[in-house]
Amino acid sequence: MKKLNIPAAFDRIPEPWSPHIAARVNNQEVRLAKIHGSFDWHHHDGVDELFFVVKGRYVMRFRAKDEQWDVAMEEGDMIVVPANVEHMPVAEDECWILMVEDAGTLNTGDKVTDKTKTELPVL
Amino acid sequence: MKKLNIPAAFDRIPEPWSPHIAARVNNQEVRLAKIHGSFDWHHHDGVDELFFVVKGRYVMRFRAKDEQWDVAMEEGDMIVVPANVEHMPVAEDECWILMVEDAGTLNTGDKVTDKTKTELPVL
Repeated sequence: MKKLNIPAAFDRIPEPWSPHIAARVNNQEVRLAKIHGSFDWHHHDGVDELFFVVKGRYVMRFRAKDEQWDVAMEEGDMIVVPANVEHMPVAEDECWILMVEDAGTLNTGDKVTDKTKTELPVL
Repeated sequence: MKKLNIPAAFDRIPEPWSPHIAARVNNQEVRLAKIHGSFDWHHHDGVDELFFVVKGRYVMRFRAKDEQWDVAMEEGDMIVVPANVEHMPVAEDECWILMVEDAGTLNTGDKVTDKTKTELPVL
């Protein structure tokens, strides 16, 4: 049982799009990631994904059928992307985010891309 | 699907020891609470509980068998109290915390006290 300082833990994350595990709670993983640029469109089958902005800002893009919309995420904002909803974070400048999702969830969801990460480092 | 600014949401929490639901994710609840003073010793059967300090500081007290120890929780610190572990938060000054635990978990765990809250407000 060790505490972890969340903002300080980002110093140990060397690059964007590399989620690190900060904590495990009831079969969920709390993950930290730096994001910069555009991720890939994806969704998570049957798994909700919570996003919280620790530092900076970004845009969460969503699409469903013929509709597409953006949510501007500012520092301190939290949003839950429900299971199966297509989404793509885009960060013009580096942004630090915290996520909560089922343990073992693939970061790129239903796709394998050059941003797919397995064996996530533990902080 | 709406975003919520976590620090700002505390303005809608009128008093200490009144957890409010900020989000639901995969059958977990993200709860916000102001804490001030001492809570009651308790544990949660089979349910882990994550604590994150949004603002201020407090002390998480733990006990197991004949042992008792404290962890000083500073702003930005996160800790997971594993299922069944006795704990008690103590805040000398008002502190704002975020928690993650199974939906429906009783805040006072195995006990019903004057701090027990059911029907948590949703932010």
